[in-house]
Amino acid sequence: MEVNKGKGEPGLQNPAKQMDKPVHLHAVESMLPKAVKRRVHALKRLQVQCGNIEAKFYEEVHELERKYAALYRPFYDKRRDFITGTVEPTDAECEWNSDKDEEEELSEQIKKKIVIDPAKKEDATPMEDPKGIPDFWLTIFRNADMLTDMIQEHDEPILKHLKDIQVKFSEPGQPMSFTLEFHFEPNSYFNNAVLTKVYKMKSEPDSSEPFSFEGPEIVDCGGCVIDWHKGKDVTVKTIKKKQKHKGRGTVRTVTKQVSNPSFFNFFNPVKAPPDGGEMDEDSELAFDFEIGHFFRERIIPRAVLYFTGEAMEDDESFDEELEESDEEQDEEEDEDDDDDDDEEGDFDPRA
Amino acid sequence: MEVNKGKGEPGLQNPAKQMDKPVHLHAVESMLPKAVKRRVHALKRLQVQCGNIEAKFYEEVHELERKYAALYRPFYDKRRDFITGTVEPTDAECEWNSDKDEEEELSEQIKKKIVIDPAKKEDATPMEDPKGIPDFWLTIFRNADMLTDMIQEHDEPILKHLKDIQVKFSEPGQPMSFTLEFHFEPNSYFNNAVLTKVYKMKSEPDSSEPFSFEGPEIVDCGGCVIDWHKGKDVTVKTIKKKQKHKGRGTVRTVTKQVSNPSFFNFFNPVKAPPDGGEMDEDSELAFDFEIGHFFRERIIPRAVLYFTGEAMEDDESFDEELEESDEEQDEEEDEDDDDDDDEEGDFDPRA
Repeated sequence: MEVNKGKGEPGLQNPAKQMDKPVHLHAVESMLPKAVKRRVHALKRLQVQCGNIEAKFYEEVHELERKYAALYRPFYDKRRDFITGTVEPTDAECEWNSDKDEEEELSEQIKKKIVIDPAKKEDATPMEDPKGIPDFWLTIFRNADMLTDMIQEHDEPILKHLKDIQVKFSEPGQPMSFTLEFHFEPNSYFNNAVLTKVYKMKSEPDSSEPFSFEGPEIVDCGGCVIDWHKGKDVTVKTIKKKQKHKGRGTVRTVTKQVSNPSFFNFFNPVKAPPDGGEMDEDSELAFDFEIGHFFRERIIPRAVLYFTGEAMEDDESFDEELEESDEEQDEEEDEDDDDDDDEEGDFDPRA
Repeated sequence: MEVNKGKGEPGLQNPAKQMDKPVHLHAVESMLPKAVKRRVHALKRLQVQCGNIEAKFYEEVHELERKYAALYRPFYDKRRDFITGTVEPTDAECEWNSDKDEEEELSEQIKKKIVIDPAKKEDATPMEDPKGIPDFWLTIFRNADMLTDMIQEHDEPILKHLKDIQVKFSEPGQPMSFTLEFHFEPNSYFNNAVLTKVYKMKSEPDSSEPFSFEGPEIVDCGGCVIDWHKGKDVTVKTIKKKQKHKGRGTVRTVTKQVSNPSFFNFFNPVKAPPDGGEMDEDSELAFDFEIGHFFRERIIPRAVLYFTGEAMEDDESFDEELEESDEEQDEEEDEDDDDDDDEEGDFDPRA
């Protein structure tokens, strides 16, 4: 039997639903005889002590993950070199007996099922002998349900320059965190060789609610400044607007910069609530945390399977989040309209 | 922010949905130029090697769990002693400042919301000074969504004798598994002091589908023989049926034993398919695996929070399973009817 393909790596929670605490059940406790209630409180004290032991357990798991990251490293470096074409695998390194029958069966099903959009078709048509594996990471972004809605058409030519995605774990003794590194080859869009996104974790029980701890949780994240070449920043767009002066009816055209949907907004995340308190599950930030977790647990360790489609998940829980992000765009547009109204005010009659 | 309270302990997957492999994505691979396909195969070989490293990682996590199980043990033993009343906690051990305002607010909400069924009310009415924490585990079975539908009214007096639930991990070098131990005080129902349920795990990649490995999976389980006292076995019931002979119209009454819904059927699980292949997610066995995982990850480590209701989860995914188990009961009844038909055949006219 196979169970849960979408699981998280040990030591980090796979972001998902919060626990419900049905109020009426507290009644059981409040109605207990004094002597029994006293013993229940003793159990709660034991529970808190176990929670502190649990925190140590997760620290050791984090250490294990650091240890194994070093063991995976040489394989991931080889992967990067094969992808970029800087190293050509030997025949021995390429031995792979894919099931013939399956392939035939597949091509049958493909005839029936597959619908390739123009972009995909382009990639699919054989070339003479391309370098490495063209559009490796871009294809993954297109394939993975969780990422495909993050990328816009104008992101694709940039993502063609993505060489590798790596995860780095925080050092022992440091506050627990992990950093996603997006390594790019020199390109005409920005100067950064690496774009980073750090995810900070709460790794021990909160004294205010000791029972809510169930292992490290992502509590905050930070991006990086992208040093865009002039006019190449896809995260903003300049729009022209005709404006009619209410009084005189004269018309002028104004240009203004507004934020533009793009994967690269991923490196300029919204801030977490300082109180570190509960967060709306459907919030943009909660979605960002899910994405960070997804890169760490799924994309980086299993990239080739997302490239071929073998690892594709059909994650229901994501549909909600995606709808949510649509709403955000609507809001943005509303804001633009507001801006225009303001400008009406300081409209220069000399225009 | 809090994410996913229902997560599994590191090193064991929280049973859930299987991964979908959309066929059309394999098309990408099949349409690649030969040279590129060759490099993708090299990546797949690297992926297999990483999978073998990953298996070692999970073995180390399992070792960590064994190590920490020993650290939790003294706290769990204390918990058991306070619950059974063999040890009375000191005042220092009972210090707990529950938020007064919250308690008042709660009792308000209780007046509005709470609906206590007769059974619960009985437990809730204060007694003089009961021993330990009466019905501790039974209350948990009643509170936890995943367990409440497993227990029948006739199970409850038996579960009142449950002293402790423990999990034991397999020794290093042994095939990976964990065993749930249900410790009972001497009772009038069966002779066993401990009822056990073992869950066997697949802890390394399957050479036939190396990419399906994502950490240890429960693949099989085994129960134990319950040495019931005469006439106390609640997993079977004796039913009397009037039967009319079709030919003569004579009527007789037959008694027969049929299986009876009971939590204690948990110790007589159905067998896993020998091929170890894919299993129907909604199957009785898949449900059993979820229950085993739930005891290990939720109930045993957080028992007091399920007793008070503070840990209660509102797990949608379970509604399906529970409906499923209802269906099973229907099927059983159908079977009974079949049996009767058979008996019509060998009906003894001398009766």
